[in-house]
Amino acid sequence: MPRPKPKGRVSEINFRVRYAETDAMGIVHHSHYVPWFEVGRIHFLDDAGLPYRTIEEMGYLFLITDLGIRYLRPARFHDLVTVRTWIDKVGSRGMRLEYEIVDEERLTLVTGHTSFICADKQGCPTRFPAEVFAALDAFGQRDDGADK
Amino acid sequence: MPRPKPKGRVSEINFRVRYAETDAMGIVHHSHYVPWFEVGRIHFLDDAGLPYRTIEEMGYLFLITDLGIRYLRPARFHDLVTVRTWIDKVGSRGMRLEYEIVDEERLTLVTGHTSFICADKQGCPTRFPAEVFAALDAFGQRDDGADK
Amino acid sequence: MPRPKPKGRVSEINFRVRYAETDAMGIVHHSHYVPWFEVGRIHFLDDAGLPYRTIEEMGYLFLITDLGIRYLRPARFHDLVTVRTWIDKVGSRGMRLEYEIVDEERLTLVTGHTSFICADKQGCPTRFPAEVFAALDAFGQRDDGADK
Amino acid sequence: MPRPKPKGRVSEINFRVRYAETDAMGIVHHSHYVPWFEVGRIHFLDDAGLPYRTIEEMGYLFLITDLGIRYLRPARFHDLVTVRTWIDKVGSRGMRLEYEIVDEERLTLVTGHTSFICADKQGCPTRFPAEVFAALDAFGQRDDGADK
Repeated sequence: MPRPKPKGRVSEINFRVRYAETDAMGIVHHSHYVPWFEVGRIHFLDDAGLPYRTIEEMGYLFLITDLGIRYLRPARFHDLVTVRTWIDKVGSRGMRLEYEIVDEERLTLVTGHTSFICADKQGCPTRFPAEVFAALDAFGQRDDGADK
Repeated sequence: MPRPKPKGRVSEINFRVRYAETDAMGIVHHSHYVPWFEVGRIHFLDDAGLPYRTIEEMGYLFLITDLGIRYLRPARFHDLVTVRTWIDKVGSRGMRLEYEIVDEERLTLVTGHTSFICADKQGCPTRFPAEVFAALDAFGQRDDGADK
Repeated sequence: MPRPKPKGRVSEINFRVRYAETDAMGIVHHSHYVPWFEVGRIHFLDDAGLPYRTIEEMGYLFLITDLGIRYLRPARFHDLVTVRTWIDKVGSRGMRLEYEIVDEERLTLVTGHTSFICADKQGCPTRFPAEVFAALDAFGQRDDGADK
Repeated sequence: MPRPKPKGRVSEINFRVRYAETDAMGIVHHSHYVPWFEVGRIHFLDDAGLPYRTIEEMGYLFLITDLGIRYLRPARFHDLVTVRTWIDKVGSRGMRLEYEIVDEERLTLVTGHTSFICADKQGCPTRFPAEVFAALDAFGQRDDGADK
């Protein structure tokens, strides 16, 4: 499988694997990549000037509609892993993010994506507020030479 | 260590250990007994006629203030474990529950306790509503020959 | 989205949502459906006469290669949810399972799939042992009028 | 409650609260402080020159026997929390660590402790290897002016 080719700006964050994230196979349990994508996504929103806490304070939620993961190599306890996050596409009411998690040698461990729709506090789908859409759109277009 | 001696009614619930709850030592990660105590506690409240969902709907929260666990034997994947929960003491503003988790041979895996205070939706400590206190107190006193 | 149409035997297991599985949106965090699929899968293997513990004792692992989830409705604390699991396809070296999680009214909360390859204890891909393949294949074909 | 007074060297590590670690009360679920203590402990062992991965490679495990937590203030999504870890006592076959988790204003969120015994790969209690005991003992005694 070819490595994913991010189109715009890539946001990166790294951390060490916790012992609690391993399972009886001696590797990271496959479910833990989902919160790791979320860590990447939250960092991506910070980078885009849209802290998720601010979005919630504005009265909005991002509801997940779809998630996919491909598992290539296992992560192990204490490995330093990096979550790379970028926008695949953004529309007026939702967006699709892509992820790649790599190890210290930049080998791909997993790839994946999540789709979201914007919702109000009652969970009703709605348009992104104009400034949120503008910031996401600008960030997705940006190609500032960040490591890809 | 002697087995704990519950004073009143004991509430029991059982379930199988999930693979996701194991760690690289091949046993259940020590953190997972905390949500298991919670499963026992929720079932205990159901048994006492006080579903936690109802308590939240009435505008109250139980805030944990203290937790302790003693680890005696490890649980493993697919083991059928039973959480036993009972009241140690209940006051006008809080309570202390005790737990024992046993395997299929009724061998003790862990013992523990949690203390709670009653709070309103803003998180301010408050008295238990009268009917909640009465139900907890009655349940704690009850000695109806349930398995101990 | 049309409901998935299982082709063979469907295995079902139910349990209540734990408080620890909720998040600050007041609903189940989207990552927890992954261990729930696993609970369904382990139960499915029990139903097929292939307890996963036995498979590990025979010296084999099932390594996940791919996972997908579609989120339709949120689950909430204390809901009784049912995980429905069936085989989409099985080959000599791997299989693809499908899942549907429903609430007490049999409304679909999420759908999903996972793909696995068979591996030895060193994690090297290998063929399913003959008796495992036979049991999976037979179970996948079976159409015994179980609820679909 | 007075703040704990560490006796020797204090090891510190910080990270942001994950959304997946919150619950329906809008705060961090009380179970997540247990893996956070572990993150602190692993970092403490790194600081002491005893990476846990090395200990496992030497054929030893640290088995937890006892855990206690006092909850003072809740952590919330995206808070930057710091886990402070130090030795309370170390013997020939086990040790007791203490923890304090603080927020960005250095306010105490929780305090706690864990006790461990040294075991071999079969889980049989054994003495610490001499170099492990020496390193733990030296680290526990050290009072090098680190922030307390």
